[in-house]
Amino acid sequence: MRPSRLDCVAADDADPLAPLRAQFDLPPGVIYLDGNSLGALPRTTVARVTATMVDEWGAGLVTSWNTAGWMDMARRIGDKIATLVGAGPDEVVVADSTSVNLFKVLSAAVRISTARGPGRRVIVSERDNFPTDLYIASSVADSNGMTLRLVDAADVAASVDSDTAMVVLTHVNYRTGAMYDLPAITRFAHDAGALMAWDLAHSAGATPVDLTAARADFAVGCGYKYLNGGPGAPAFVWVRPDHHDAVSQPLSGWIGHDAPFEFRSDYEPAPGIGRYQCGTPPVLSLVALDCGVDTVLAAAPFGGVSALRAKSDALSSLFIDLVGPVCTAHGLTVVTPLEARRRGSQVSIAHPADGYAIMQALIARRVIGDFRAPDVLRFGFTPLYTRHVDVFDAIEHLRLVLENDEWRSPAFATRSAIT
Amino acid sequence: MRPSRLDCVAADDADPLAPLRAQFDLPPGVIYLDGNSLGALPRTTVARVTATMVDEWGAGLVTSWNTAGWMDMARRIGDKIATLVGAGPDEVVVADSTSVNLFKVLSAAVRISTARGPGRRVIVSERDNFPTDLYIASSVADSNGMTLRLVDAADVAASVDSDTAMVVLTHVNYRTGAMYDLPAITRFAHDAGALMAWDLAHSAGATPVDLTAARADFAVGCGYKYLNGGPGAPAFVWVRPDHHDAVSQPLSGWIGHDAPFEFRSDYEPAPGIGRYQCGTPPVLSLVALDCGVDTVLAAAPFGGVSALRAKSDALSSLFIDLVGPVCTAHGLTVVTPLEARRRGSQVSIAHPADGYAIMQALIARRVIGDFRAPDVLRFGFTPLYTRHVDVFDAIEHLRLVLENDEWRSPAFATRSAIT
Repeated sequence: MRPSRLDCVAADDADPLAPLRAQFDLPPGVIYLDGNSLGALPRTTVARVTATMVDEWGAGLVTSWNTAGWMDMARRIGDKIATLVGAGPDEVVVADSTSVNLFKVLSAAVRISTARGPGRRVIVSERDNFPTDLYIASSVADSNGMTLRLVDAADVAASVDSDTAMVVLTHVNYRTGAMYDLPAITRFAHDAGALMAWDLAHSAGATPVDLTAARADFAVGCGYKYLNGGPGAPAFVWVRPDHHDAVSQPLSGWIGHDAPFEFRSDYEPAPGIGRYQCGTPPVLSLVALDCGVDTVLAAAPFGGVSALRAKSDALSSLFIDLVGPVCTAHGLTVVTPLEARRRGSQVSIAHPADGYAIMQALIARRVIGDFRAPDVLRFGFTPLYTRHVDVFDAIEHLRLVLENDEWRSPAFATRSAIT
Repeated sequence: MRPSRLDCVAADDADPLAPLRAQFDLPPGVIYLDGNSLGALPRTTVARVTATMVDEWGAGLVTSWNTAGWMDMARRIGDKIATLVGAGPDEVVVADSTSVNLFKVLSAAVRISTARGPGRRVIVSERDNFPTDLYIASSVADSNGMTLRLVDAADVAASVDSDTAMVVLTHVNYRTGAMYDLPAITRFAHDAGALMAWDLAHSAGATPVDLTAARADFAVGCGYKYLNGGPGAPAFVWVRPDHHDAVSQPLSGWIGHDAPFEFRSDYEPAPGIGRYQCGTPPVLSLVALDCGVDTVLAAAPFGGVSALRAKSDALSSLFIDLVGPVCTAHGLTVVTPLEARRRGSQVSIAHPADGYAIMQALIARRVIGDFRAPDVLRFGFTPLYTRHVDVFDAIEHLRLVLENDEWRSPAFATRSAIT
């Protein structure tokens, strides 16, 4: 039977994770289903960033590099993120953007692969991978005389063979929400003698990931989605420990040096994951990211990421159940896998021509998802703050937008840049 | 005659730039001579960053990418910085770190040089350039089968010949404060058929630079020194317009794409300087940088960077005049060029063995400069907020530290990471 709003209220009342929502400053009256694009503002962030500006930068000035722990922050936050992705201490560091970190790890992978033997000249990825991953993979392939082979998601495993140097995939597809079986694909890559790099942008903090158990080689991920680090937050990078000291990466900036403050003219990469840092750490952004990561760590006493994932499954299943009849009535299609274990923490629905206007009309009703060209309306569920009633109400708004043709208003026709 | 403290008070009273100091929240009782490492906190920064967090991120959530102008900010700030370095609109963009931007421009320079002909396989730099510049140049050379040739500053011009692809130098040396004749060195490089890339980390905002008049090819610079953008602020990158569309750079992230929100699988670099962006812009850091850059633009009605430079010359000359007898009495040496036009906005003095402890003792007296291994005490002058009396008092403190052997206290012996 179709769940009622009262069922959703009851589910929220029974939700052991419900208290975690109070960690966020959510605007009243807004149903926010876009934490997979930009996570919400944690309540602690403003005070902590302000204290960093006033007390550390303003009063402490340059001495705060020593006294306020600025220099180690990227490692400390990395250690926190490590606990969310099945990595150990000193295996993750926060630095730069996802794109830049992907360049680092793919370049390092080329070096490792080439050292093993010159025969593997292909990088395999998914045709519908997030574009920045494809652009960076293409650049790394071009710079190293390699070829980027793009295949459909279903064909990835079959496309990895003795010519493959590495496979690079995003765990959860940004558009469809489809999730790879990370251990199985990693095994396929390894069985073919290839290295495996994962982009966890849409999974870190929302879905259990065990990089160590899967024995993946490299991973990168985003700080501003489920980690709630703020717009353009720094990203993270993980490298399996046995690769740490095997090669360096080409963005050999001074902060990745073994002894940056000895100002030596020769680059001596830091041991371990430290060599994946490059320039001076972005302190204000790091403090905001630290607050965001702490909101996810706060789920630990309630069962951690597994508990978050269970709630996420419940929310996305509820959304799919409720949206089905609306889609059928109005020519929309659910493009996210219906099997929970095959999707991330989002549901996407497609409309042949008017997805953008429909999303704008929803946003006018203060239901915030986003649109991804050419035809996808995305709805993300952040189990830290998304409630069952939010899902119920969002679908009701969607139904009204469609039944009343609200999206046909000229106000919603002109496409702006991002959402 | 040696200037007295009253002379310095009089100079401050007569200083037309004196009102600009009120733009900063400087801690009382501190003499801050390290704005060349970390610029001071502008008074506007806390309110603007807080508003960005609360109103834009917190309340506006993901829609602020459109409504709050987040996506264009890196270009808008770039246009402001352009006015400080002799560049035009749409020629500068803020992105990533100085190190990452240097990797972009040196990689682009390799592509331009190689397209002109394969014969030039040498990158020339200064042996005592800031280490990150050397590390990145070395990495770019290695990745492209080139050689990095390091020479003394005095030998740079003579070392550029028909095998030289590019010259990469920092305009003002971080350790000694020595400043290159930027137009002359650029001309030497060009006369030899090489490209010229400048790191303006220690000059942007403190010293007039005219990249256009010099017809330099590339420049990068730092946001957290004289631009007052905060610890680890994003950096900037300038490319001469006729190079913009000639080549792309290898960090081909989605924000450098011509149409990022069409999510195409092929990388089509944005026209112009936009292609030097890579990942998602770091919004909180950009807002802080914008406030910092504005403090320098506020000098425009008073004569702009030329007026800042005139005051900087006066301050560094005063420092040199006053420190001379102290150095002579205590075995220190001024290592910064005595001729004003040959130095940046800092004066460095060397002590054979105990520079670190002497600087710590000075900091204990609340005179903040920094130490650069192995032997240099650095004193930077930020004409926006450094006063003549600050210089006078700093030297008095230095004299007392040395005369009273204060630096011999065991408290100052253990070297910590940075200052």
